[in-house]
Amino acid sequence: MPTIRIALDAMGGDHGPSIVVPAAIRMVELHPELELILVGQPDKIKKYLKKSHAQITVQPASEVIGMDESPTTALRAKKDSSMRIAVNMVKENQAQACVSAGNTGALMAIATIVLRTLPGIDRPAICGLIPTKSQKLIRFLDLGANVDSKPEHLLQFSLMATILSTAIDKINNPTVGLLNIGHEDIKGNELVKLTSLLLQNNSAVNYSGYIEADEVYNGKVDIVVCDGFVGNVALKASEGTAKLVQFYLKRAFNKNLFTKFLGMLAYPVLKAVQKQIDPARYNGASLIGLKGIVVKSHGSANITGFARAIEEAMLQVKSNILEEITSI
Amino acid sequence: MPTIRIALDAMGGDHGPSIVVPAAIRMVELHPELELILVGQPDKIKKYLKKSHAQITVQPASEVIGMDESPTTALRAKKDSSMRIAVNMVKENQAQACVSAGNTGALMAIATIVLRTLPGIDRPAICGLIPTKSQKLIRFLDLGANVDSKPEHLLQFSLMATILSTAIDKINNPTVGLLNIGHEDIKGNELVKLTSLLLQNNSAVNYSGYIEADEVYNGKVDIVVCDGFVGNVALKASEGTAKLVQFYLKRAFNKNLFTKFLGMLAYPVLKAVQKQIDPARYNGASLIGLKGIVVKSHGSANITGFARAIEEAMLQVKSNILEEITSI
Repeated sequence: MPTIRIALDAMGGDHGPSIVVPAAIRMVELHPELELILVGQPDKIKKYLKKSHAQITVQPASEVIGMDESPTTALRAKKDSSMRIAVNMVKENQAQACVSAGNTGALMAIATIVLRTLPGIDRPAICGLIPTKSQKLIRFLDLGANVDSKPEHLLQFSLMATILSTAIDKINNPTVGLLNIGHEDIKGNELVKLTSLLLQNNSAVNYSGYIEADEVYNGKVDIVVCDGFVGNVALKASEGTAKLVQFYLKRAFNKNLFTKFLGMLAYPVLKAVQKQIDPARYNGASLIGLKGIVVKSHGSANITGFARAIEEAMLQVKSNILEEITSI
Repeated sequence: MPTIRIALDAMGGDHGPSIVVPAAIRMVELHPELELILVGQPDKIKKYLKKSHAQITVQPASEVIGMDESPTTALRAKKDSSMRIAVNMVKENQAQACVSAGNTGALMAIATIVLRTLPGIDRPAICGLIPTKSQKLIRFLDLGANVDSKPEHLLQFSLMATILSTAIDKINNPTVGLLNIGHEDIKGNELVKLTSLLLQNNSAVNYSGYIEADEVYNGKVDIVVCDGFVGNVALKASEGTAKLVQFYLKRAFNKNLFTKFLGMLAYPVLKAVQKQIDPARYNGASLIGLKGIVVKSHGSANITGFARAIEEAMLQVKSNILEEITSI
């Protein structure tokens, strides 16, 4: 079995090495073909790496990019950050992919400058996985890499996501829905109307027309495409609503002694639901369109979540995603 | 006490007169100063209006606009629709406001053509009420009246919502947040960046900077402003997520006999939470910026929801909203 080498930004995310290192250990134990490089401050990494693993190495990087740091500072002033070194390793073929739970804006900026976009792709996009009422997850992009996108960008996003969905999710001829505020031809802004024409006329995309934001979760299409400003708002509005519902549930079950008792009994049921809507469960958004595989983990992901992001990177390496996208 | 006359589109919404008529009866019984005009097909209205009420009259209108009908058809081909006649009555000063649960696109088109915008306002907006973790509701606009808005439109929306929030919600110097995908100056699209400059330099708006979509529900600002495409996506993404969580809860409580029993016990608690996230509870979005008060009820609103929309129209009439907006 050929070796798969993946560089991990060990310092990224809300929890840094306390999550990344255990996730790495779990993954190498499951996958003998996997080699992981933990990039970051060796003393902090070693606190969680009690014994040496044949499949895990440590690559020192002295700096850490803060979760709220500006992408410009991260890019210019922190050349020895764990995130930068992890991306550099992909550029220099020392790793076939990298995974970071760090600052999204910084990762996007660094990855784009260091790796550059693939031929035929103007802008990379962030492609996430979204739960639906059916069992399947769907691909949703762009989640915030680009604002003020042009129709040809949304066409490129559709083509790239079609490749991901076919190769990774094993969906045959995946359907693409274009996010809009209604189904009729007259609905939507200029971007959506022009993109719809491009998608209708491209035989490589199985275009199924407009989809509204509340229909996304029905799982009727395999891919949802939109501008990054809109996608980021949709994603965060959903996260905010899920938290609001959890807040109401907690308050309602805390109302009196009887409801508290009920809440205790129903705890496993409520916990299962909470798990189902937890973003970490569907972790591992892809930065697609670059000359290298970069997977972004949710900043607050737990060990299982970060392991899922490593798995996404592995699947992309195995599927030769980059060659597929280059052939668009 | 001066009389308040409001025209109701009795045929609009998913349930038509079966909801509108009982809501009207409830409201006139509560408010002796209120006179309501039920506009629509008299035979259908009278099925629910068993006896005559001194404060309720019926205004015949032969046509009904379907929930999926195109705004253009509704506008051109159905001059005797209940929605059109209700709006006409506002135009001709036979009513001080109108309320409809019908097709939003059609209502927007008809109201804009018949009533026209107020001086100084280029485009009307749809302004909704959104629940938050704090007790208060906040105003959110534009929810879909306009796409491809310009910065000056978002400034006008901010000014109008400030007036609504002050006059109706009794909030002193309400804060305005501009919906964006981050807090830093470099974040966002061109529209957001240019609008932020306009808002910073306008002393009539208490601008508090950028707000992200997941923060909206924290209730830290009183008003959230965005383009109608973005606002509509945010609203529908939230509705879709709330339904997804309800779907997961239902499935989890239906898993086995024990969880079904728990679900039965917890039913009042779950029902209370469902009620809290039900859009009908915060019913009565305003079409603001027109030379007349038009309130849009949610299509699926129940009697309480539609009564709430009538109340919103009453409050706007009492507060002289139109004069306030004209003085911007």
